[in-house]
Amino acid sequence: MSVSTKPASGFRDFLPQDMRRRNHVADVITQVFESYGFQPLGTPCVERLDALLGKYGEEGDQLIFRILKRGEKLQRVIDSGEGTDVSLADAGLRYDLTVPLARVFAEYRNDLPSVFKRYQIAPVWRADRPQRGRFREFFQCDVDVVGSTSMVVEAEVTAALADILKRLEFKGFRIHVNHRQLLRALMEVSGIPEHMESDALIAIDKLDKIGRDGVVTELLGRGINPDAVDKLMPILDDADSPETEGFSNQAVLEHLESAIGEVESGRTALDELKQLLDFASGSPAADKLYIDPYLARGLSYYTGPIFEIRSDDFPGSIGGGGRYDGLIGMFSKQDVPACGFSLGFERILVLMEERGMFDDADSGVDALVTVFNEATASNAINLTHELRAAGLNVDVYTTPGKYKRQFKYADERNIPFVCLLGPDEVANGTVAIKNMKTGDQVSVSRSDAAKKLIEMRA
Amino acid sequence: MSVSTKPASGFRDFLPQDMRRRNHVADVITQVFESYGFQPLGTPCVERLDALLGKYGEEGDQLIFRILKRGEKLQRVIDSGEGTDVSLADAGLRYDLTVPLARVFAEYRNDLPSVFKRYQIAPVWRADRPQRGRFREFFQCDVDVVGSTSMVVEAEVTAALADILKRLEFKGFRIHVNHRQLLRALMEVSGIPEHMESDALIAIDKLDKIGRDGVVTELLGRGINPDAVDKLMPILDDADSPETEGFSNQAVLEHLESAIGEVESGRTALDELKQLLDFASGSPAADKLYIDPYLARGLSYYTGPIFEIRSDDFPGSIGGGGRYDGLIGMFSKQDVPACGFSLGFERILVLMEERGMFDDADSGVDALVTVFNEATASNAINLTHELRAAGLNVDVYTTPGKYKRQFKYADERNIPFVCLLGPDEVANGTVAIKNMKTGDQVSVSRSDAAKKLIEMRA
Repeated sequence: MSVSTKPASGFRDFLPQDMRRRNHVADVITQVFESYGFQPLGTPCVERLDALLGKYGEEGDQLIFRILKRGEKLQRVIDSGEGTDVSLADAGLRYDLTVPLARVFAEYRNDLPSVFKRYQIAPVWRADRPQRGRFREFFQCDVDVVGSTSMVVEAEVTAALADILKRLEFKGFRIHVNHRQLLRALMEVSGIPEHMESDALIAIDKLDKIGRDGVVTELLGRGINPDAVDKLMPILDDADSPETEGFSNQAVLEHLESAIGEVESGRTALDELKQLLDFASGSPAADKLYIDPYLARGLSYYTGPIFEIRSDDFPGSIGGGGRYDGLIGMFSKQDVPACGFSLGFERILVLMEERGMFDDADSGVDALVTVFNEATASNAINLTHELRAAGLNVDVYTTPGKYKRQFKYADERNIPFVCLLGPDEVANGTVAIKNMKTGDQVSVSRSDAAKKLIEMRA
Repeated sequence: MSVSTKPASGFRDFLPQDMRRRNHVADVITQVFESYGFQPLGTPCVERLDALLGKYGEEGDQLIFRILKRGEKLQRVIDSGEGTDVSLADAGLRYDLTVPLARVFAEYRNDLPSVFKRYQIAPVWRADRPQRGRFREFFQCDVDVVGSTSMVVEAEVTAALADILKRLEFKGFRIHVNHRQLLRALMEVSGIPEHMESDALIAIDKLDKIGRDGVVTELLGRGINPDAVDKLMPILDDADSPETEGFSNQAVLEHLESAIGEVESGRTALDELKQLLDFASGSPAADKLYIDPYLARGLSYYTGPIFEIRSDDFPGSIGGGGRYDGLIGMFSKQDVPACGFSLGFERILVLMEERGMFDDADSGVDALVTVFNEATASNAINLTHELRAAGLNVDVYTTPGKYKRQFKYADERNIPFVCLLGPDEVANGTVAIKNMKTGDQVSVSRSDAAKKLIEMRA
């Protein structure tokens, strides 16, 4: 039986054009994070199983790809007749980049700066059922700041994200902002008890999907007291939605301030949001931050400001995050202040592809040097090196012979210019440069070839 | 029991300084390959087990990390009582980058250019016993050209490798070159039959480790006829070794030419080597190629020129490769001409670290903007964005307060300049810039701050 040459189900090959797009996005993200003083971190793709299990809930645990024990260790488990997905494996592929960050922070805390600003763009694995747009190996792009409670952190993270999306030429996106303690305060003034907070958050978070009436039904369905729902909903409704014309953060904040009255945690939350807006005023995020009291973000670990990036142009979000205190200390059993964001790398790729935002005209190669015959091959190769030394990306055709085949190769690779160096050109010290798009051809002296190509490329 | 926070045995975390070094090496390699017209390829870390098994010999198969089946599929194997490392797993972590290339070539051949020049810098996994300098997850850096028999390919690959090592500032390295058909011809004229060729190659390949007398002993021990050994060794000995003063490729080639006489395959091999030297004459490899008839490279799949990079400064090699015909077609059951090279990414890292070749003074951040107090925080953040807009990498301290703590943070992160922006500076429209190395401090107008920093950084 011949072996299939497709990648395993849920996995992808990336041919050069795909890779070029992925590298472009990763490069822009890296450049921005570096310019903001974030530092790169690398962790292994494989973690011990005991470091992974119990961190993602029961459902998450089931999605961890497990690596089979080997040799005697494996044989012992098989012989015992008690093989299970836990006993047969001793390691797994990482499921996210947060648990490894927590492990690294616990292990190397003394070697890290007092405030640790790290980014990591790397694959993670989840044994989800493969379906359109959902893969078992995908890149996550995480940025986190560990060790500071200051709103400067939130301002820096949101500024970097806005900067990245602007450089990638996304238009019309918004960073929705809310605060967990503000939500808590709104529930308190509405009479929703603390133990029902998660239920209420899950319902509120669904506004996008089920609409305002759906949220009310869901709140009631989850056992929230109807009086409390009657108090909470008008507060949320009366805040302008970020999609509304004439939206103003100032107006929303004033409305919420009057709603929460004297509830202490709520006032602190509002002060933090105001400070964030102030700190962001000169940043790339200045025109992108929208206070949105409906934003809940389901995950229960957030403790402060929360964020989500959305746009009218596309459904769902392209990233989210917020402040969380309990997670980074999970291995060292202590609270460590942290704020982080996960940017939807794969989602960005899909959106940019769908919208034709990639400049695929750029194949990465500026010119192809052709090889007329065996006798001129060495000369052609030398020209190639001269052009490279001038900073050009240049390919040389490998097999002397018909120009037609060499032009075809240039077309296959989307190379914009072709250099011709036949016996006449060699004798005259010239190079003919053909523009593959227009078919125009010019002859230049060999010493001017690089300069001419740089000029034509521009 | 508390969970260990160390990475799994044989795996590594890379803190920011490690990552910066790894990224630097990967960036230089990528830039050079791109400037030579090589294209990036991405393949999944996980491959189907049937695509991996049987490609690396029995020993290799044992070193493949296998991924446990899941759910019902797993339960059926457990229930059958016939669990083995093959039946319990259905996928594995890739073991190298060559088998995935062969799979990709078979699957997408029609979408790829007629000559496919690809590079891939990516992790591979081997379940070797961990030991000093040997890891279970490590990067491979492969470059291959598929689809051409021309020596232009060999010239391009060796030129790119020499270019990379020169840009990384390696000195004194040599690219040893030999040809499998030349070795075959030398054995033929010495009277070593074809079926003993692999035995002879393994012995010759050990010259570095066991010396000339050791090679003779090993050849005899492997059953090579003493007369043949007496004929072969003088041919090899009389060729100048690349380490010899006054070595000349010309002299070695002439010596070998007279040795092989009229053996057809040997003459073709010598012609190819001569052509390679001619093609390389204007390339970065021109002064780095050394014909070395002792070079054998154990792997049996090479069919043409073979290469290995060595230096007197360090033992072993930092990469090797050659022309191979059978491998890329393994999935499509056809011969496909190919030539490739695997550069020792991890070895390069170790050598550069040992020799202090990394510029660790560059922490990636040009300056830290301090935050005097709450009132000036917003102003400090705005200054940070002004400096970033000028192309500088700038961090801002997160918590207003004592300069001492902020200077300590700058030192921890090896940040060379600190910008001070207290109430006086804000009032005067100035910024004080402190050189953290010398302690010198200058005051500049805020609008000149970026220019001044760029000047001081140089």
